[in-house]
Amino acid sequence: MKRIVVKFGGTSVMDAERITRAAGIIAGLKQNGTDLIVVVSAMGHTTDHLIDLAQKLQVKPNGRELDLLLATGEQAAAALMTMALEEQGVKARSFTGAGAGILTGTIFGNAKIEDVQSEVLELCLQSNVVPVVAGFQGISEDGEITTLGRGGSDTTAIALAAALHAERCDIYTDVNGVYTADPRIATNAFKLDALCYNEMLEMAKHGAQVLNARAVEIARDKSVSVRVRSTFRPSDEGTLIGRVPSKFTDYTGIGTDTKSAFVRVSLNPPRSNAKNYMRIFRRDRSHRKNKLVSVLASAHINFEVGCTFDTISHELDLCIDKSDLEKSVELLRQNLRTGEELFVDLGLARVSIISQEMNSTCEIDSVCSLSKSNIPIRFLVRTPKRLSIFVPANRKTEAVNLLHEKLERVRLSA
Amino acid sequence: MKRIVVKFGGTSVMDAERITRAAGIIAGLKQNGTDLIVVVSAMGHTTDHLIDLAQKLQVKPNGRELDLLLATGEQAAAALMTMALEEQGVKARSFTGAGAGILTGTIFGNAKIEDVQSEVLELCLQSNVVPVVAGFQGISEDGEITTLGRGGSDTTAIALAAALHAERCDIYTDVNGVYTADPRIATNAFKLDALCYNEMLEMAKHGAQVLNARAVEIARDKSVSVRVRSTFRPSDEGTLIGRVPSKFTDYTGIGTDTKSAFVRVSLNPPRSNAKNYMRIFRRDRSHRKNKLVSVLASAHINFEVGCTFDTISHELDLCIDKSDLEKSVELLRQNLRTGEELFVDLGLARVSIISQEMNSTCEIDSVCSLSKSNIPIRFLVRTPKRLSIFVPANRKTEAVNLLHEKLERVRLSA
Repeated sequence: MKRIVVKFGGTSVMDAERITRAAGIIAGLKQNGTDLIVVVSAMGHTTDHLIDLAQKLQVKPNGRELDLLLATGEQAAAALMTMALEEQGVKARSFTGAGAGILTGTIFGNAKIEDVQSEVLELCLQSNVVPVVAGFQGISEDGEITTLGRGGSDTTAIALAAALHAERCDIYTDVNGVYTADPRIATNAFKLDALCYNEMLEMAKHGAQVLNARAVEIARDKSVSVRVRSTFRPSDEGTLIGRVPSKFTDYTGIGTDTKSAFVRVSLNPPRSNAKNYMRIFRRDRSHRKNKLVSVLASAHINFEVGCTFDTISHELDLCIDKSDLEKSVELLRQNLRTGEELFVDLGLARVSIISQEMNSTCEIDSVCSLSKSNIPIRFLVRTPKRLSIFVPANRKTEAVNLLHEKLERVRLSA
Repeated sequence: MKRIVVKFGGTSVMDAERITRAAGIIAGLKQNGTDLIVVVSAMGHTTDHLIDLAQKLQVKPNGRELDLLLATGEQAAAALMTMALEEQGVKARSFTGAGAGILTGTIFGNAKIEDVQSEVLELCLQSNVVPVVAGFQGISEDGEITTLGRGGSDTTAIALAAALHAERCDIYTDVNGVYTADPRIATNAFKLDALCYNEMLEMAKHGAQVLNARAVEIARDKSVSVRVRSTFRPSDEGTLIGRVPSKFTDYTGIGTDTKSAFVRVSLNPPRSNAKNYMRIFRRDRSHRKNKLVSVLASAHINFEVGCTFDTISHELDLCIDKSDLEKSVELLRQNLRTGEELFVDLGLARVSIISQEMNSTCEIDSVCSLSKSNIPIRFLVRTPKRLSIFVPANRKTEAVNLLHEKLERVRLSA
């Protein structure tokens, strides 16, 4: 029988009314003769509230305890969803991550799924009972409850789809699919019908909040077809992510985020010593950059190195996740030489153009568009599949709309 | 080393500030060199809110799912308390009921503790780590999470104290002990220094909300000394419940509750047939009463049979827990004969005089006091250790104060 994993996010199970609505969708699918596995996130902003509470009690909450705490959110949602399903005549049974056989590594707060022992869920499906699994959590080898990090319920759903050989994993959320850009920002953004895994991966990493990046990687590695769709418009087919040919040559979409800080290490020596510096600097520049970059890399900090248009740059420009910023600044400071300086800018937004194959025309077009409108470009990161442009956060909306318009014009004329 | 179980109720862990306060008490005790095991209830009104939510989703929430849902409340509180302890420099580790080895029967929502496998907690104590256990829950033989019913965290605490051979179990709550009557109702109620188990059991069953009756039974059966004390006045010694001689001959205290309904079956046949009835009734009365009472008993309904002053009573008076009322009324109705009638009164309060040995002077004194003040007595239940008087709910405060005053006068004059 056709088998689908359906996952409902926090906004889809925010209160009793929404849980009932989601249960209605499940009941409808069940009537169509589909075997279903349900995965739920915690209700609404439960996880954030629990984290706030924990931080009131312990400056840096204990990882093990935080996971035990946060896991309650999804456990409660799973039980409630099961009740709503039973009320609608659907036989159902809730499971914690541990109960569903989701085995993880031991890193609290960011555990990786290592195996899914799906026997219990298989038995459940064989007796025509819908298993409702608490997302975002699992159990480690030593019996500790772990959580999978932000967006972990997507990961649970896709891992279950792979383990149970489901035909598809439907991610029900509060938008009806993946858009070319955040539709709350870009006026002309439109929904994409289909994306391939790598496109989605870049989109997820750089601002599309509908799907978690790690979940996309698992989907890609295990060839799970994923559909992102709306709980509030269930007849809308949403966006399919799978082994589909890309429709777009120039660009897939535009992502935006403000989660990264811009860090600049100025390698200039003091002016008073300018002559001497020029000599030393020319000899030493790339070595110094490599040295500082390797300090961060050894500390397992995720960062990206920027490219500026100035070919003889005296600056090391970095983009560092704000959550790693404190640690990074401390490390860099410890390694600065006399005269070297550190600048941190938290007020930038990153606008990322995602493309199957980045080309220089697109890059030049983009940069020109922004320049023409006097939007300052602080920093650029270039990868084969992405161009990220850092602009002042208060110019974000303008920048995204300009780029979206420009890129759409290019595409339509192609 | 001295070993104490300390349990904190819902109001003692209502928010971050109160959890920190409770953690302070624990930290203080730990400094005194006591080995501690902590048990926590869910924060504030969490359990009630979760039940409300469940009832919005399913008319009669599934027992298994409700237990999975409710268990999250104590799990969260245990994790948060552990964080607060660690912040205060106390090494601690949280456990779910299952994790702490609390094995129960299989009745969801009202499971009985069958065994405590205390090895994990013993190991924890040996490494000088304070185990913080989620109260109110356990795990059944078939691996299902169960809850122990209302007041179940008291049961968890006392069962752990017995299993771990603790010197005492301290129940921290929002009042500083057990009172002769509810101090919010009786102006002159005073705190009792000590009670024996059976006195406490009657008090707990008939209105004293500080301690759960089943927990008292376990304490009695396992000889666990219990202290009821206040989180907000931790230096107050509270009330000791244990193998102590009773100080009181006439009465221990007065309990009040409104959880029971008064049900009267009038065995009178219709007036039009009065003559015939008199004959039948005289022959049949006690048989009929026994018949109706056995109907309820076979359905496992808890009820008490009243005594009226009318020796040739034509009425069967019953006191039935409101939660069993619907079922009881249905059963009685099915068994009524022509002419028999059923009356239900939900507007009565039960005022119970608890005594080591009930004597008739006390009973007559009590009833006279109420009569003199024109408080109608609707119904009396008499047991060797208790006299329960049903009065209109709106006269409850007056009745309790009158009785408390009267009984104190009797005692002081003895």
